[in-house]
Amino acid sequence: MENSLISLEHGNGGSEMQGFLQFYVGDFYRGNDWSNFTNDGATFPLSNGDHLCFTTDSYVVSPVKFPGGNIGHLAFSGTVNDLAVMGADPLGISLSLVLEEGFSRGELDEILSSIKTLSSQYKIPVVTGDTKVMEKGAIDKVVINTSGIGMAKRVLNESLKEGDKIIISGGIGEHGVALLSQRFDFQTEVVSDSKPLVEEMMAIRDAIKCAKDPTRGGISAALNEIAGEEGFEIEVWKERIPVKKAVQSATQLLGIDPFELANEGRIICFTSSEKSDLIVEKLRKFNSEACVIGEVKQKLKMGKVVLKTDLGSRVLVMPSGQIVPRIC
Amino acid sequence: MENSLISLEHGNGGSEMQGFLQFYVGDFYRGNDWSNFTNDGATFPLSNGDHLCFTTDSYVVSPVKFPGGNIGHLAFSGTVNDLAVMGADPLGISLSLVLEEGFSRGELDEILSSIKTLSSQYKIPVVTGDTKVMEKGAIDKVVINTSGIGMAKRVLNESLKEGDKIIISGGIGEHGVALLSQRFDFQTEVVSDSKPLVEEMMAIRDAIKCAKDPTRGGISAALNEIAGEEGFEIEVWKERIPVKKAVQSATQLLGIDPFELANEGRIICFTSSEKSDLIVEKLRKFNSEACVIGEVKQKLKMGKVVLKTDLGSRVLVMPSGQIVPRIC
Repeated sequence: MENSLISLEHGNGGSEMQGFLQFYVGDFYRGNDWSNFTNDGATFPLSNGDHLCFTTDSYVVSPVKFPGGNIGHLAFSGTVNDLAVMGADPLGISLSLVLEEGFSRGELDEILSSIKTLSSQYKIPVVTGDTKVMEKGAIDKVVINTSGIGMAKRVLNESLKEGDKIIISGGIGEHGVALLSQRFDFQTEVVSDSKPLVEEMMAIRDAIKCAKDPTRGGISAALNEIAGEEGFEIEVWKERIPVKKAVQSATQLLGIDPFELANEGRIICFTSSEKSDLIVEKLRKFNSEACVIGEVKQKLKMGKVVLKTDLGSRVLVMPSGQIVPRIC
Repeated sequence: MENSLISLEHGNGGSEMQGFLQFYVGDFYRGNDWSNFTNDGATFPLSNGDHLCFTTDSYVVSPVKFPGGNIGHLAFSGTVNDLAVMGADPLGISLSLVLEEGFSRGELDEILSSIKTLSSQYKIPVVTGDTKVMEKGAIDKVVINTSGIGMAKRVLNESLKEGDKIIISGGIGEHGVALLSQRFDFQTEVVSDSKPLVEEMMAIRDAIKCAKDPTRGGISAALNEIAGEEGFEIEVWKERIPVKKAVQSATQLLGIDPFELANEGRIICFTSSEKSDLIVEKLRKFNSEACVIGEVKQKLKMGKVVLKTDLGSRVLVMPSGQIVPRIC
């Protein structure tokens, strides 16, 4: 009977969610013209050779306000980032609010104000929306869905090959720690990395093969997804992966793995070995911690991710279980 | 202080929601290329002359299953309909599930099965998605967001003029009554009209000026929105508006107005007087109750809707207050 109820793990971004989705998504009708069906988005070819990109995400983060952002900041950034890592220029965003009766209009003002500020700053309009109100107790404060449309000249779905380099655009685990500091009430200087990655992706997209924003499930989930889709062994070097001191302390304190923590303003991208220095140089204009963290090894039937450390190697598995729900 | 909290009326589809949205939407950044910003959708011109249409809706209906449908059926139909009434061929739909921990997988199966069936039947694929799980008690069972992209040769936003006819594609209030029968536990033969209106719109769209699907707030809200946007007096004839006997009995029993009840499978459209017979004929192939229900009168600074009855006339105002929340 355990299997017949939804559990928190079904939304964890890790192995249970992958299984759950595969179970349901398998027999959906598929339009012939769409491709790149992934969790993060789909693309449709237009007659002029461009590709329409389409993505959706609902945000259920708790608390709705956290160091470095709020649910609105996250919703705008997250959907823009899903488009950006596909190689698209975001064209427009939808905004659907589901509010609890009795929710404070002051808090709503703050949330919408974050969205408006980002929308103006990045010149990505919110073009359509919806508002529903549920009676008190039927929803915890607010859930936001943002869906987005973008246009790409080139969809970033180039195949990998042995020797390709893996680059991260900055330190990991910061959104996760910022959120956990509120939930478990500890002091930290860490703030969420929540941020639209439009400029970063514009700077590098012509020179990379593919990219992902490592949100739920952290870089462990993102790397495992790519390794699985592409059927490669991926090797990452622990000592090279940028983790801020304060993130390290917090994760040690909590006994959790920073590789499994959500990021909301970071890119993991794959590039040929020759271009990797150029990419790092470009990304360092935005964040000095950008660096090469690993490389693609041999082709495998079932992809896997190996974490190499100064002391040895271990397989970095797809996260399972649930550190804490409602991280994004 | 009353104003500083969200109330159920902010989501009613009527005057309070309109005011609330105008307050917030006013100063959002607007991309120059987008137009037809409405609650229901926006359009973007492509280089080949087609128009990309984009819409979003979150569904919070309670109970999640009702006579004639369920939240999945509603979510698919509602988003497809918002595209169809803009004049678009729906191209693809996103599906975002927010589930309560402990929600029954059997119920989820039924919901997804409805979506899959409609998706195959209408050949409109679900191309991207998202799944979140909130802890038990943090959300009432399930909220679904569907956003949609469509392509229109001609966006249905032609200006009205005096003498234009108003047509409804079938009987009104059926979704509302089907829902209320569950909430207030009374017997009725009425089932929800929830249905994708793709075929109906394809049959008539070349011959009409504009269309709306009269959901939350019923035909009162839809007619008032159009009268307001266009600045016209709109006259509708009470005796002509199709209301099934069982809907009449139920609304009399509950003391509510069928004109304010949600429909989820009906079109209100506007056409020149010459074409109105043709439109009615085409719509009757789908529903024998389709008919002309009124006409456009003189231009006014502030639009209004007049309901003419055998006994006299009254202004049909934008609904206010809340009959019952979570109707869709």
